[in-house]
Amino acid sequence: MAAPVTHAQDTVRVEVDGTTGRVVLTAARRRNPLSVATMRAVTDGVRQVAAADGVRAIVLAAEGPAFSAGHDLSKMVDRTLEEEREVFAVCTEMMRAVHEVPQPVIAAVQGMAVAAGCQLVATADLAVAAEGAVFGTPGVKIGLFCSTPMVAVSRAIGRKRAMQLLLTGETIDAATAVEWGLVNEAVPAEALEGRVAELARQVADASGATLRIGKEAFYRQIDLSEDEAYAEMSEVMATNAMTCDAQEGMSAFLQKRRPVWQHR
Amino acid sequence: MAAPVTHAQDTVRVEVDGTTGRVVLTAARRRNPLSVATMRAVTDGVRQVAAADGVRAIVLAAEGPAFSAGHDLSKMVDRTLEEEREVFAVCTEMMRAVHEVPQPVIAAVQGMAVAAGCQLVATADLAVAAEGAVFGTPGVKIGLFCSTPMVAVSRAIGRKRAMQLLLTGETIDAATAVEWGLVNEAVPAEALEGRVAELARQVADASGATLRIGKEAFYRQIDLSEDEAYAEMSEVMATNAMTCDAQEGMSAFLQKRRPVWQHR
Amino acid sequence: MAAPVTHAQDTVRVEVDGTTGRVVLTAARRRNPLSVATMRAVTDGVRQVAAADGVRAIVLAAEGPAFSAGHDLSKMVDRTLEEEREVFAVCTEMMRAVHEVPQPVIAAVQGMAVAAGCQLVATADLAVAAEGAVFGTPGVKIGLFCSTPMVAVSRAIGRKRAMQLLLTGETIDAATAVEWGLVNEAVPAEALEGRVAELARQVADASGATLRIGKEAFYRQIDLSEDEAYAEMSEVMATNAMTCDAQEGMSAFLQKRRPVWQHR
Repeated sequence: MAAPVTHAQDTVRVEVDGTTGRVVLTAARRRNPLSVATMRAVTDGVRQVAAADGVRAIVLAAEGPAFSAGHDLSKMVDRTLEEEREVFAVCTEMMRAVHEVPQPVIAAVQGMAVAAGCQLVATADLAVAAEGAVFGTPGVKIGLFCSTPMVAVSRAIGRKRAMQLLLTGETIDAATAVEWGLVNEAVPAEALEGRVAELARQVADASGATLRIGKEAFYRQIDLSEDEAYAEMSEVMATNAMTCDAQEGMSAFLQKRRPVWQHR
Repeated sequence: MAAPVTHAQDTVRVEVDGTTGRVVLTAARRRNPLSVATMRAVTDGVRQVAAADGVRAIVLAAEGPAFSAGHDLSKMVDRTLEEEREVFAVCTEMMRAVHEVPQPVIAAVQGMAVAAGCQLVATADLAVAAEGAVFGTPGVKIGLFCSTPMVAVSRAIGRKRAMQLLLTGETIDAATAVEWGLVNEAVPAEALEGRVAELARQVADASGATLRIGKEAFYRQIDLSEDEAYAEMSEVMATNAMTCDAQEGMSAFLQKRRPVWQHR
Repeated sequence: MAAPVTHAQDTVRVEVDGTTGRVVLTAARRRNPLSVATMRAVTDGVRQVAAADGVRAIVLAAEGPAFSAGHDLSKMVDRTLEEEREVFAVCTEMMRAVHEVPQPVIAAVQGMAVAAGCQLVATADLAVAAEGAVFGTPGVKIGLFCSTPMVAVSRAIGRKRAMQLLLTGETIDAATAVEWGLVNEAVPAEALEGRVAELARQVADASGATLRIGKEAFYRQIDLSEDEAYAEMSEVMATNAMTCDAQEGMSAFLQKRRPVWQHR
């Protein structure tokens, strides 16, 4: 059974279920708008479950017909520049938290994931979509170009396709999102929760120490030149090889037995 | 009706048709070779329509059976190094102009688009191909590796596929170009002009101020590290949110009415 | 007939066959583990055939049911940090050699290509797979995250898909590898050798001087910003245009005859 950890913010539920932490958007009726308060609650929730004992994978999910329609526009009209800046600073901090926690973060996407909602999907380490999900960066239609979402989206799907979403504001369906590499797979809506839970368990089979080393290394190397990346990753991998879990993993493999991790 | 703006160079036609500027290669019989004079005319044409009143999208098109066969080889034999340098400096300036004008640039590609012709397609913000179009970087076959085209092409389609085009000199068809993300879509030849006009109108529905902010931001962030990109884009988006068109767009959305842009 | 050039290391065969150099992993029964000695032999072999007279393309192949299962784990248990560092330094040097030799390197992949084996495929300029080949970075399952393979793999297939392979440890089949751009094409197993030989001959039709200029330029520009890349590539292409093979190639094209290269 999932045990709620906190209810700090009533638009976000944070829970730990065995080795899986879950951060769930719960403003279903309003299509899960990402207000500053909600984004702070997601950020805190992600960090909180990451710090909980035994959590090896984190699921980002949402209730209702939409994953998230993006920022809460009702709170962005008639504001000062300082207030607008806060929205995007808090949003960027949420994206950073997804990359910074040591566990893999898996987005479970049903329905609409647009603007900052699409950015959150692009930012997650892995993403599974329900077949009816749609994705897009439609800010151009309301005069507010999706300039922060495009950081994550253009790095996930490439230039021409990012420009298509950004300039036309149109959405793509789940099958196209898979084809473009925005999400990893699409499943029938009724299978979404089960498939994500399965993926979280699969990931959780690994040594926690190894996942931590690998995820941190991934984001460290991705923006470097290839030569710089190799210089850093060679050292990461050599020190990883010295850890007790790698020594155990290699020995178990050679002895054709299951490894027993010290660092769950 | 389209009103010709200029005939500065007889291999290029420049026209404005409502909210759409058009720059059309007209040396159909010669497969639209990109001589220095032609490339300068394209560059000037793109900037000229970008500066024209009310232009919100720019179409790059070509007459005849080919989009463009690339540089004009007849003008690259027996030249000095300074003359060769001029060819690639002028070519790079043309590509830069496509990225620098504030309006989205849409390539409408029928027939062959190879070498610098393929580069122009890769450089355009959006591209639509006729189903019979072919794409490639065949310079290797004539001893002149497509080193400047590969800047745009490798960034659009990735390493292995770029290497395939560059090392073998072979061409790909329009369906493959869509699959690889080199163009956004392929349509029957007879539908090309209509589809591109439709896309130009769709793009032109947006606030011109917003398109300007977004396109400029896209190319500014694409080569930065993710952290640097977020730092810059957060500020872009906060100031974008303060513009009257964003305030109008958000208000209209919340009031479920169509926005009225100040900056057409 | 292929003439063996060397047998410096009994797990690697190095041979030159006309214009094609071949470096073949021969520890078929052990699934071609990449020990330090084997990786040094591959590196030396690649450089040796690259330096041989008349070699215009290099094939990386493997005997037996697997292409390569990656590093030799039996030699990575109970080692010092210095010894582990040597493994990854030698491995990175092998990848660098593949990029540094002036001829195109084509991987011919049958069976399993995982971990450093998958990295070698991602690093090759071109890759052809037998339909039964599988690809992956399963280090996470043995506690040793594939941090150096991910440098090449994430640059070939993008973030979400790289993360999927890295975090789950699962493999993908050849068709998926083609779809993701990890390899260029998949052919029936019995056609693999013939197809790779054909591709090597196709590549070898080009001027050796031109291939050298182009391949070197490709890896020089790929990690630069677009502006920096254009600055460098414009100069590369202008000087390329001045070479006798480019002058001959352009003249031959204009005269509708086959070019005769000086620099085979």
